[in-house]
Amino acid sequence: MTGSVSVVPKVTEVPPPRALGVVGAGQLARMMGEAASELGIEMTVLASDPSDAAASIATRTLVGAADDPHSLAALAAVVEVITLDHELVDLDELDALAERGTPVWPASSSVIFASRKDHQRREFQRRDIPVPHFVILEEPTIDDLEAFATTLGHVPVVKAARGGYDGRGVVMATTLAEAMDAALEFATRGPVLLEERLALLGEVAVLVATGLDGSRVTWPVVRTVQSDGMCAEVRFPSGLSATEEQRATQIAVQVADVVGAIGVLAVELFWTAEGILVNEVATRPHNSGHWTIEGSLTSQFENHLRAVLGLPLGATEPLATHVVMVNVVGSATPGDLAAALAITGVHVHDYGKSWRPGRKLGHVTVAGTDPESVRVRAWAGAEALGTALEKDRT
Amino acid sequence: MTGSVSVVPKVTEVPPPRALGVVGAGQLARMMGEAASELGIEMTVLASDPSDAAASIATRTLVGAADDPHSLAALAAVVEVITLDHELVDLDELDALAERGTPVWPASSSVIFASRKDHQRREFQRRDIPVPHFVILEEPTIDDLEAFATTLGHVPVVKAARGGYDGRGVVMATTLAEAMDAALEFATRGPVLLEERLALLGEVAVLVATGLDGSRVTWPVVRTVQSDGMCAEVRFPSGLSATEEQRATQIAVQVADVVGAIGVLAVELFWTAEGILVNEVATRPHNSGHWTIEGSLTSQFENHLRAVLGLPLGATEPLATHVVMVNVVGSATPGDLAAALAITGVHVHDYGKSWRPGRKLGHVTVAGTDPESVRVRAWAGAEALGTALEKDRT
Repeated sequence: MTGSVSVVPKVTEVPPPRALGVVGAGQLARMMGEAASELGIEMTVLASDPSDAAASIATRTLVGAADDPHSLAALAAVVEVITLDHELVDLDELDALAERGTPVWPASSSVIFASRKDHQRREFQRRDIPVPHFVILEEPTIDDLEAFATTLGHVPVVKAARGGYDGRGVVMATTLAEAMDAALEFATRGPVLLEERLALLGEVAVLVATGLDGSRVTWPVVRTVQSDGMCAEVRFPSGLSATEEQRATQIAVQVADVVGAIGVLAVELFWTAEGILVNEVATRPHNSGHWTIEGSLTSQFENHLRAVLGLPLGATEPLATHVVMVNVVGSATPGDLAAALAITGVHVHDYGKSWRPGRKLGHVTVAGTDPESVRVRAWAGAEALGTALEKDRT
Repeated sequence: MTGSVSVVPKVTEVPPPRALGVVGAGQLARMMGEAASELGIEMTVLASDPSDAAASIATRTLVGAADDPHSLAALAAVVEVITLDHELVDLDELDALAERGTPVWPASSSVIFASRKDHQRREFQRRDIPVPHFVILEEPTIDDLEAFATTLGHVPVVKAARGGYDGRGVVMATTLAEAMDAALEFATRGPVLLEERLALLGEVAVLVATGLDGSRVTWPVVRTVQSDGMCAEVRFPSGLSATEEQRATQIAVQVADVVGAIGVLAVELFWTAEGILVNEVATRPHNSGHWTIEGSLTSQFENHLRAVLGLPLGATEPLATHVVMVNVVGSATPGDLAAALAITGVHVHDYGKSWRPGRKLGHVTVAGTDPESVRVRAWAGAEALGTALEKDRT
């Protein structure tokens, strides 16, 4: 009789640690970190300051500048893949990291669409992606402005082609003199974009996630409501017709193709009676997608991580019929967390930043079935937290 | 004409930083940390090892023993409120912290119900909370066992009154000799509990959260499925009748009153044809409540933080008609995260622990409308991650 033998299986492969690096340590990195913790991914951030929003949640925090080669090399030394919290990076340095063997997603060739509006507008026009009428001027003169204003029949909007965000770098001039002042100021920092002023029905956004293998998911179209050029509120559903939503999604996917996006791409769109046009793109998770944390089967943060780490993308179906996100921007006095949490269904996201008037401190999301109740509670939550933003009347 | 004066409001009160300390740094502390990050709460953990599950997400990690006065004092020095990741603590040291001014929730007078089964069974019996028939023996003899077995009409279950968890410290003896061996072994570590062996229809659990102001919420009753004494699966809804669910919830609330619980209390219950009886209690978030992260409007982790920090409790209504959680316990070989994430709706929670057969490494949750699909996907997700647990046939 043969004795029984107990075989202990030999471990042939232990999966490598999933070590993600993030350039920047703001609220987007913080929310990536929350998703990373759930998935068992170690996140190291390159923070400009130890008090940055993501430092408290990151597995490791390196303090250094996002455009400093030594800081970036230190980050690359402890991670397997690098992604970005913001676009204010040195594209050549990103390329250098990738060349030395640490993949960076999104690649610099994608990021340039977000950080250089001149490049973005020219490429999109070339690929038949709808954008407002524009001209790009390196050294703007009043003759240039006049000529374009005559073509449009109105004073153009003036935009800095580099470095603007949250309404900074955009002037909705009402006179040519005002437009010229803005153009001269912006011209000191790079090219100037003059654009037609559209009669907006509203603004919407579409998020697209693209995996390393080319797989792709989109989230439902959302309505975005601005206050002084800053995103105040995001609403699902968007209120657009099914045809308009299809068109918005189609444009966003086309943008993702042209941009060569990997990870989450946010496409902000103008909604007009004449059609839908691209406003801005961000090659990373975006404020217009914060609602997906509670509102969608897979959040933009989790899908961004999945994408840049080469994991399968998650489904994006909405989890409620109505979802509203409202930003919390520091008002004159600090807010009251207890008062916000006393409101049923209010999900508070506090980025852990020190309070300062005008600073984006967090956001609030409410999901539910009754659109009015959802919106009222989301705004009440944000107001309890002391938001300086004003609810519009729409 | 009087000139206009711009008044800058004076800041009269800046809310104190919300600094929470956690004794222990396992997966419960890690999931508390994910909730803490969302709420802008700084969490410091007292870890026994720098590689503990919560160390990577905590704002600060102190390394020291949970029963070491110096380590506890170091934790108390940097936080405002202390809570617990586990009950393997020195109750006198907790009292000392509270006396020196750092509130500890749950209090030692509550924790004792979880860490000392003899105390718990005696107190519950005294307060008419249904428990199995039991005797407590300090120095068990075969005569004691025989006498109790005769009363019951069967061989009793033998339990260690102190320090058991996940099936450890429980022997389902089939002969008196076996029961005696277990009793003698357990007696070296403290009192021994002999209990009747119930004919179970199943096991269920109820979570209760109690605020500092006495406010209280309960989550829906869930069915818990064990495998070798370890929780394998948790299912919402429980499958009990409405009357039975009411009874289970009533017992759990009564337990919370007797225990004087602050924060989350988990009550594990035996479901029998003769009624519902208390099995175990845990004075902290619990495996039977992990489903609430995706399955309920406010998770057990967020409500635990809200409670111990004196914030209002959140509503606990379920977000789907069916939710299933399956634990991932290390099998012979490491699992495949990509395979798990390829299954629609699978929410992976990886505790970031190094893989080892038999070790609780994470869990998977799926929420949806079709009970069979939800359960199949949850198990498939856990199996892709390499769980050693076996799905029962029920």
